Amino acid sequence: MTSKKLVNSVEECANEALAGVVACNPNLQLLQGYRVALRSDLDSLKGRVALLSGGGSGHEPAHVGYIGKGMLTGVIAGSVFASPAVGSILAAIRAVAQAGTAGTLLIVKNYTGDRLNFGVAMEQAKAEGIPVEMVVIGDDSAFTVLKKAGRRGLCGTVLIHKVAGALAEEGVGLEEIAKRVNEVAKAMGTLGVSLSSCSVPGSKPTFELAADEIEVGLGIHGEAGVHRVKMAPADKIVTLMLDHMTNTSNVSHVPVQSGSSVMLIVNNLGGLSFLELGIIADAAVRLLEGRGVKIARAMVGTFMSALEMPGVSLTLLLVDEPLLKLIDAETTAAAWPHVAKVPVTGRKRIRAAPTEPPEAPHTTAGEGAASKQMKLVLERICTTLLGLEEHLNALDRAAGDGDCGVTHSRAAKAIQGWLKEDPALANPAQVLSKVSVLLLEKMGGSSGALYGLFLTAAAQPLKAKTDLSAWSAAMDAGLEAMQRYGKAAPGDRTMLDSLWAAGQEFQAWKSPGTSLLPVLTKAVKSAEAAAEATKNMEAGAGRASYISSARLDQPDPGAVAVAAVFRAILEVLQIQKA
Amino acid sequence: MTSKKLVNSVEECANEALAGVVACNPNLQLLQGYRVALRSDLDSLKGRVALLSGGGSGHEPAHVGYIGKGMLTGVIAGSVFASPAVGSILAAIRAVAQAGTAGTLLIVKNYTGDRLNFGVAMEQAKAEGIPVEMVVIGDDSAFTVLKKAGRRGLCGTVLIHKVAGALAEEGVGLEEIAKRVNEVAKAMGTLGVSLSSCSVPGSKPTFELAADEIEVGLGIHGEAGVHRVKMAPADKIVTLMLDHMTNTSNVSHVPVQSGSSVMLIVNNLGGLSFLELGIIADAAVRLLEGRGVKIARAMVGTFMSALEMPGVSLTLLLVDEPLLKLIDAETTAAAWPHVAKVPVTGRKRIRAAPTEPPEAPHTTAGEGAASKQMKLVLERICTTLLGLEEHLNALDRAAGDGDCGVTHSRAAKAIQGWLKEDPALANPAQVLSKVSVLLLEKMGGSSGALYGLFLTAAAQPLKAKTDLSAWSAAMDAGLEAMQRYGKAAPGDRTMLDSLWAAGQEFQAWKSPGTSLLPVLTKAVKSAEAAAEATKNMEAGAGRASYISSARLDQPDPGAVAVAAVFRAILEVLQIQKA
Repeated sequence: MTSKKLVNSVEECANEALAGVVACNPNLQLLQGYRVALRSDLDSLKGRVALLSGGGSGHEPAHVGYIGKGMLTGVIAGSVFASPAVGSILAAIRAVAQAGTAGTLLIVKNYTGDRLNFGVAMEQAKAEGIPVEMVVIGDDSAFTVLKKAGRRGLCGTVLIHKVAGALAEEGVGLEEIAKRVNEVAKAMGTLGVSLSSCSVPGSKPTFELAADEIEVGLGIHGEAGVHRVKMAPADKIVTLMLDHMTNTSNVSHVPVQSGSSVMLIVNNLGGLSFLELGIIADAAVRLLEGRGVKIARAMVGTFMSALEMPGVSLTLLLVDEPLLKLIDAETTAAAWPHVAKVPVTGRKRIRAAPTEPPEAPHTTAGEGAASKQMKLVLERICTTLLGLEEHLNALDRAAGDGDCGVTHSRAAKAIQGWLKEDPALANPAQVLSKVSVLLLEKMGGSSGALYGLFLTAAAQPLKAKTDLSAWSAAMDAGLEAMQRYGKAAPGDRTMLDSLWAAGQEFQAWKSPGTSLLPVLTKAVKSAEAAAEATKNMEAGAGRASYISSARLDQPDPGAVAVAAVFRAILEVLQIQKA
Repeated sequence: MTSKKLVNSVEECANEALAGVVACNPNLQLLQGYRVALRSDLDSLKGRVALLSGGGSGHEPAHVGYIGKGMLTGVIAGSVFASPAVGSILAAIRAVAQAGTAGTLLIVKNYTGDRLNFGVAMEQAKAEGIPVEMVVIGDDSAFTVLKKAGRRGLCGTVLIHKVAGALAEEGVGLEEIAKRVNEVAKAMGTLGVSLSSCSVPGSKPTFELAADEIEVGLGIHGEAGVHRVKMAPADKIVTLMLDHMTNTSNVSHVPVQSGSSVMLIVNNLGGLSFLELGIIADAAVRLLEGRGVKIARAMVGTFMSALEMPGVSLTLLLVDEPLLKLIDAETTAAAWPHVAKVPVTGRKRIRAAPTEPPEAPHTTAGEGAASKQMKLVLERICTTLLGLEEHLNALDRAAGDGDCGVTHSRAAKAIQGWLKEDPALANPAQVLSKVSVLLLEKMGGSSGALYGLFLTAAAQPLKAKTDLSAWSAAMDAGLEAMQRYGKAAPGDRTMLDSLWAAGQEFQAWKSPGTSLLPVLTKAVKSAEAAAEATKNMEAGAGRASYISSARLDQPDPGAVAVAAVFRAILEVLQIQKA
């Protein structure tokens, strides 16, 4: 079976992919009749060296993403994983020459086809009198013995684009740029690993891997790597990669050792999640620094891909201050990331935690009637909820995951645990805030968050006053917060229904001269009626909203729990009053 | 079976992924004890509004990639696809408050868990006296009927980070920023499609798709979309997406119509190849402009992912000039790309092809002995190669793909076709260049490129002089080019072996007083001997280098062809001389 791809046709995919990037980036233009993209401000480059690169398509954002001021002048793209046509390369060289540039450097990844086709175009352009030089980049560290064909060009090529671009922008001459980047190219190495292969549009995946294997030493054309290893933790994989690419008995190693200063690229080969990419970056920085290597700059992202290959490559480049200046130089190239211009190693990566606000002054417990009453209320709420556990679970099994009773019991036990510490309970705002924190930490789930929100908001009006009017305002504030964050409204078959019913009754407390118990009694009855009424409601929010209403013939357990809490409060206050 | 992932442990993956990004970016710091990343220059933000965002992990580069000057102050990350802990959110708010910022805006994607947890933290922070506001972003255009929970927060959230960041950088106040971004958030829509699902580390893929189906209307948590359609060309998929997200009967549509000015995001949901992303971008720009929509800005890349989901989302935001100014404002955030500050629509996307160098002046054919001789030589070379086709194919079958004879016949026929046009052949440099172009265009393969390179380079010394010394220099130049680009050396069992042998004999022409035929005769014999000697060589380059030497007991067909070409030349010149 061929691969599943979002394309219009296999034939047009390289053309359309290039056209899409150019269409979205006004800094770029296509060259009429060729698969070539160029800076749209080409005519501003008179007298400067032009930089052309390219190769097969399928490595995006390379190479077109690196066109811009301070990087490439243009790129020539081949079909997927195939060298560009000589005619396109020659056309690109002529176009930049005719724009008045002072010669062209071709930056070519070391593959036979690319070397030959760029080489032919270069010879033809030279025969036309255009000054052209070529650098062939081989940064692959996979092969431990010398290959006639030399090291393959991989992600490190992007750094050559950057360095050459900065030099060209400075006005450095063609031969000098070629010489400088050839030196830089010798000081780098790249190694890739992958969880699986990729597939060229219209073709099958290029190799198969078992579920417990990963491929090591990959190129960027879907070909298999140099060997396979068993799946292992990220740290072990990165250790293996660093060992391989810095091992001095490997002819293609990069001479990184303790004390070396490097630029690190953590490159997504295409289809790896950026979560994993971050984990590999974490391991790479940690393990390199553990070896005494100083990381001067690092970049993490997709820079040189092999279509959708779910893998990662690490590139290490030995750097000194003059080279870093070139790496840090400004560019408008779309795929070059914002890289901070300071060293990665040696800076403080962790900021001290913020100080917590001072706890309310600890007052001795049990002082006065108010504190005693509050404690009795809380205790009664806890025993009530614990007594309801099985009932609430049963109600919840019809509409949710059957843990509503367990959740409320967890809350009750958290409060009981706190009450055992004999806390001061004189200040209602503090008590509500404290219970809020307890429920947020211990109750869990959406209910915990919603109760927490309700209580945090309700505590605010009680900071200034604690009269009946303030308690009504507290209820309003809590209801407002719950509706705002929970997006439920009265009638949605949630805990809000009984809370809201009680809150309506509490409005009476805002009028002068009303008293506690009559209103509270009415509120409890309203809350209980509202809880019962949820039986006939369609769920509009919460987990029950996914259940067809025909199957919901029991009241909502959250609403039942709220009503029971109000009754518990009433019972204690009635006893106290009596 | 659970998914194959490059992680150390499922438990630590969100922590390590965040730590990795922070480690690689010196502009960021972690907050001790919390899964929070903050700007490392936090203390320079005194008096400004702080912007915090975040949510579940697995959406990288969101949200940590958007921290920087001109974007976010910090982010709070949850576990994969899970809301961040209230404690972490509150710690982040306290940290930025304690750094002296003038209040905090929380930018939250519309999901119940995020709304609740950010909401709780906000209420607690407010209770501590910290000014905090929250905007809840819902840009999802998938659901055509109103959902109680509202539209989900998707990739458009990144634009809110940008706009809010630019406003905060300008020194705008907390409430004003909240108001402005709420307006912006109403003017956007996002829709995603995917070829397959993704899998949370340690879990199975979240849904299954047939090989000929794609999922439409996805969220970013691996959940299935709103419907499935049959696989179709990219243009058709993008048409379907644009129709859906701009359809006025869809309650969550974005009101884009002919004449609208928009910002477009083409976002990789994680595992799609960037090749496909470019194709989708091409289709999106083309189809939007076809509807009369003006694209003011566009960005293409991975901005808000769902782990490794191989899909793409399109985001459209209605823009005007003041909004574009905020989009264009500078930022140091690592994951915000370089976006050109000029409109996408309306500019010239194609540059005219370069002019070709003038053809050499056409001279009448058949004038003089030199031209006649050259024609006879070329004709003899062609008939020789055509006569060798089967022999060369047979030799090639032992070591390559058996088409060496066919390839050389193709070259011969191309030259014969050209000779029929009765061209002027007086100028050897022009003849070699012309044959070079013919072989590059018609011969194909590496041989075509190598012959082309050889002839292009060889033509150069013959421009000034055409004496025997110049012919020897031409041979040297050709050999140098062939070795340089082809990376073969004498002894590698390639066509170079016989070319090189002949070239050694031609050195004699550089001495005064030598004559044509004796040296050429020696050269032919040397070339034939060298071709025969390839029998015993191990292949060091070219396709045969992949074959074990024990199986190579025939001479290299390329070397045999070259020797035959030299003999053909000698035969014609001997006859002419006689």
